[in-house]
Amino acid sequence: MSTPIKVAILGARGRMGAAAVDAVSAASDMELVAALGRGDQLSKITDAGATHVVDLTVPESSEANVTFAVERGLHAVVGTTGWDEPQRARLEAVLGQHPEVGVLIAPNFALGSVLATSFAAKAATYFDSVEVIELHHPNKVDAPSGTAIRTAELIAAARRGAGVPAAPDATEKLLDGARGALVDGVPVHAVRLRGLTAHQEVLLGSEGEALTLRHDSFGHSSFMPGILLGLRQAASHPGLSYGLDRYLDLGF
Amino acid sequence: MSTPIKVAILGARGRMGAAAVDAVSAASDMELVAALGRGDQLSKITDAGATHVVDLTVPESSEANVTFAVERGLHAVVGTTGWDEPQRARLEAVLGQHPEVGVLIAPNFALGSVLATSFAAKAATYFDSVEVIELHHPNKVDAPSGTAIRTAELIAAARRGAGVPAAPDATEKLLDGARGALVDGVPVHAVRLRGLTAHQEVLLGSEGEALTLRHDSFGHSSFMPGILLGLRQAASHPGLSYGLDRYLDLGF
Amino acid sequence: MSTPIKVAILGARGRMGAAAVDAVSAASDMELVAALGRGDQLSKITDAGATHVVDLTVPESSEANVTFAVERGLHAVVGTTGWDEPQRARLEAVLGQHPEVGVLIAPNFALGSVLATSFAAKAATYFDSVEVIELHHPNKVDAPSGTAIRTAELIAAARRGAGVPAAPDATEKLLDGARGALVDGVPVHAVRLRGLTAHQEVLLGSEGEALTLRHDSFGHSSFMPGILLGLRQAASHPGLSYGLDRYLDLGF
Amino acid sequence: MSTPIKVAILGARGRMGAAAVDAVSAASDMELVAALGRGDQLSKITDAGATHVVDLTVPESSEANVTFAVERGLHAVVGTTGWDEPQRARLEAVLGQHPEVGVLIAPNFALGSVLATSFAAKAATYFDSVEVIELHHPNKVDAPSGTAIRTAELIAAARRGAGVPAAPDATEKLLDGARGALVDGVPVHAVRLRGLTAHQEVLLGSEGEALTLRHDSFGHSSFMPGILLGLRQAASHPGLSYGLDRYLDLGF
Repeated sequence: MSTPIKVAILGARGRMGAAAVDAVSAASDMELVAALGRGDQLSKITDAGATHVVDLTVPESSEANVTFAVERGLHAVVGTTGWDEPQRARLEAVLGQHPEVGVLIAPNFALGSVLATSFAAKAATYFDSVEVIELHHPNKVDAPSGTAIRTAELIAAARRGAGVPAAPDATEKLLDGARGALVDGVPVHAVRLRGLTAHQEVLLGSEGEALTLRHDSFGHSSFMPGILLGLRQAASHPGLSYGLDRYLDLGF
Repeated sequence: MSTPIKVAILGARGRMGAAAVDAVSAASDMELVAALGRGDQLSKITDAGATHVVDLTVPESSEANVTFAVERGLHAVVGTTGWDEPQRARLEAVLGQHPEVGVLIAPNFALGSVLATSFAAKAATYFDSVEVIELHHPNKVDAPSGTAIRTAELIAAARRGAGVPAAPDATEKLLDGARGALVDGVPVHAVRLRGLTAHQEVLLGSEGEALTLRHDSFGHSSFMPGILLGLRQAASHPGLSYGLDRYLDLGF
Repeated sequence: MSTPIKVAILGARGRMGAAAVDAVSAASDMELVAALGRGDQLSKITDAGATHVVDLTVPESSEANVTFAVERGLHAVVGTTGWDEPQRARLEAVLGQHPEVGVLIAPNFALGSVLATSFAAKAATYFDSVEVIELHHPNKVDAPSGTAIRTAELIAAARRGAGVPAAPDATEKLLDGARGALVDGVPVHAVRLRGLTAHQEVLLGSEGEALTLRHDSFGHSSFMPGILLGLRQAASHPGLSYGLDRYLDLGF
Repeated sequence: MSTPIKVAILGARGRMGAAAVDAVSAASDMELVAALGRGDQLSKITDAGATHVVDLTVPESSEANVTFAVERGLHAVVGTTGWDEPQRARLEAVLGQHPEVGVLIAPNFALGSVLATSFAAKAATYFDSVEVIELHHPNKVDAPSGTAIRTAELIAAARRGAGVPAAPDATEKLLDGARGALVDGVPVHAVRLRGLTAHQEVLLGSEGEALTLRHDSFGHSSFMPGILLGLRQAASHPGLSYGLDRYLDLGF
C-alpha cells in the first residue's frame, strides 16, 4: 500500500466543497488533512502537510490560492470557474519555476460528460447527420447550455477537419424554432422540464443506423470521481493541464 | 371458428395497398376477395362478395369509392388522406340511409402513435412541464410533423381544460430556436437524422420524476395492425367514426 | 378563493414526512396546521383544527392514527406501507360509520409511475410483444422491483382478458438469464447501476412500430404531487380508496 | 478530382451484395465495373479493370476469391462471415508476396456499432457499473446476440486491465434471470420485440451520473457506409486488417 495522497480542500464549506470533503474522506488512497473556508489562512495548507490541494472557491481568490500551492511544490486540482487566458499564462509562468508540479483546471469534472463529448466529436466524422438535445431543470437561465454549445462546436470542428459535408435537411415548411438553434451548423435543441437536472444527448445517423450518446448528471456528486481522478494523476502530469480530457486515456 | 371477413382492397397497387394485401392475406380471420387498382370497375367488389372494403386510393376517388360501398351495405376502413368536413357530412347523410354500416376514416393507423397521443394528453394534466420531440428522416419537408403539432394541440387543450398553469421556464439568455417551436404553448423540437423513419417523444416532468412516452414507426407496415383492427370492429361501430382512437377502448 | 385545506402531518420528522411538510407548506391551497412526530399526542391534530391528515408513520401505528382521524370526521391520505387486508377491512367498518369521510391508501404516490403502469396495461392488449426493464441503484436488495412485478402482472392480466396470444420468441440458443425473469409470462429485466435511483421502461412492439413508456423517479420528492392530489380529492371520494389510480381520471 | 475507385462486387445477387451494388453505384468517387454472382468466372474482375473487390459471398468461396484478387494486386473488402484463423494465416502468407495490397475482413461493417463498442470498452474503465441491453426482432435464435457478447467481453477485458473492481450489486432476493446473463462478469439483457431490428445499449454509471451508448441498426443498409470506407482506405492499409476499427481513427 502506497502513502495516501494528503489533500487540502479550499472552499470546503460551499456545496461542491462539502461534497469534495466527503469524497476525499471516503477514498481509501487519500487523507484529508485540511479543509479551509473563507477567511482561513493559506498557511493551514502547509502546516497540515498537504501534498495536493483542491480549489473550489471563487474566481477572485482561485489564482492566489493555486499560485500559493504551486510555489510550495503542491499539486492542484481546480474546479473554480472563470480562469481566463491571462490568468492561465501567469500560472504557467509560475509552473515554469516548479517543473515537477502538476495543475489540472477543468470547466467540467463529470467524467461521463467529458467522455461523451469526446466520443461525439470522434463519431461525428463518420455520420451524415448529427444533432444535440440538452435537457435541464426549468430554473436554468441560458438555452442552450454551455456544455451543449461546446459539444456542438467540437463536433463542427471535427467534421470540418474531416471534410464531412453538411447534414441533409429538406425542410421547406418550418415553424420558427422547430429545428433548434444552429451552433456552428449543428442543430441544438434545449428542453426544460421540472424534475430533471442536467442531461445531454448527441444523435448521429447514417443510412440504416443511428448512434446515440447520452449523459445524465443527477447532481454535484457527479463531479467527485473526476476530482479524485485528478488528484491521483496530477503528480504524473507536470505543468498546466486544461480540461479533464487531458487526464483520460482517450488517444484522440 | 366464425366466418372470415371478406375484404376488397382499393388502391391495391400502391405502397400502402400492397402492404394491406399482404396483411389481410396473412390474417387468419380474413379472406382477401378482391384487390382493385386504378381503372378497375367498382362492381368487382360486389361481384367478389366482399363484406368490407379498405380504401387506400387518392383524395379524388375516395369519396365515390366509400359511398359505393356504403350504399351496398359494406363496411369500410379508409386510410386515404384529405377527407374534409363537407365530404364527411355527405358520407354521414348516406350512412343515415344505411344505419347498420360502419365506416372508419383515420388520418393515422399506427396503433402505437394513436395510443401515445392519447396517453400524452391524459398525462399532461398531471405534470408541471411537457415538451414534444419528433425525429424523422431528413427528406421530410415540414417541421414539426403534423402528428407532433396535433399532439401538442391535444396536450394544450387538456391542460387548459384542467386549469394547469404554464410550464415553468426561467430562460433569459436564449439562442434563437433553442427552445423549439411553440405550438399552443407547448415546445416542439424537430430532429432530422439520416437513418430514422418517424419517431416521437413526449416528455413530462414534475418535482422528482419524469414520464416519457416514445413511439417509433419503422415503416408503412406499422399501419397494418390498425387497419386489421378497423376491419374487425367496423361492423360493431355503425355510422362514421373519425380517428382510430374511436375503436380503442381508452375510456377517455 | 376557497378555504385552504387544513393539514396535519403524522410522521413529520421522517424523510418522507419532512418532504411532505415542505410540500404542504408550499401549496397555496393548503395550510399546515400540525406536524406530529413519534411521541406526540394525537389530540394535537384536532386541537389544531385539521380537516385532513397525512399519515407517513410506521406500520405499527398507522391503523390507530387513521382510525383516530376517521372517527373525528377527518379525511386521510396514507403513505405508510404494510396495510394488509384485515386492517383495511377494519378501517372500512369504521368508515361505514362516517360515510362522508374519504381515505386514500396508496402503495405508490408517484403520479408518473401510476400513470405509466395504467398506460402499459392498456397498451399491452394492442401489441404483439411486451417486456419490462427496471433500473435501480445497486443497493437495492430485490430484483426485479415490486413495481416491475406488479406492472408485469397487470400487463399479463390485461392480455389474458383480451385474448392476446403469447409474445413471439424464437430463442433456441440461450445463455442462462439473458431473456430476463418471466413474471406471469412477461419478461422482466433488472439493471443495477450506480448513479440511478428508480426507473422503469415498458417496451411494446408490433410489426413496424414500437411504443416505450418510461418513468424516472429521482427521489422521494416524486411522491409529493401525488400526496397533494390525494389531499385535494379525498373529500370528494368518500370511503376507502386503495391505489392512487382511483383518484386519476383514467377511464379504465 | 482523383480517379474513381474501380470496384468489382462478388456475391452481387445476394441481399447484401445488391445493397452494395447500389451503394457503390451511388458513390461519386467510385465506379462499379463488375458485379459477379454464383457461377461467374473470376476473370471478369480483371477483364473489367477493377482495382478493388468487395467479397459478399459464402464461406466456401470467399478465401479463393480474395486470394485471386490479392495475387493480381487488387485490394479487397470482405464481409463474408466465417474466416477462421488458418484461413487468415494463409491469406497473410499470400499478402507477404504482395506487400502493397490491403485487405479488410470485418465481422461487422456497421460503423456506429463498431464505434459504440470501442467507446464502451474505453468508458467502462471510468465507471463503477456497466451493463448491456440488446434488443432484437423475435425471430432471432440466439440470446444474447454475438455482438453483445463480444461487447461484454471487451468491456470486461478493459476493466480487468485497468484494475476496476466488480460493479456493486446488493441483490439478495432474486427472481431467476432478472439480473440477466453474466458474460465475463458483465450483466447482459436480451429483449425480443416485434418491430425491432438490431439495437444495443451499454449503460455505465457512477455516483451522480450515467452514460448511455446506444446503437440502432435498422437494416442491412447500415453496413454500406462501412464498406465504402473500407474501399476508400484499403490501399493505404497494406496487409491484412481484421475488424473495421482498424480503419477508424480511434486512437485506442
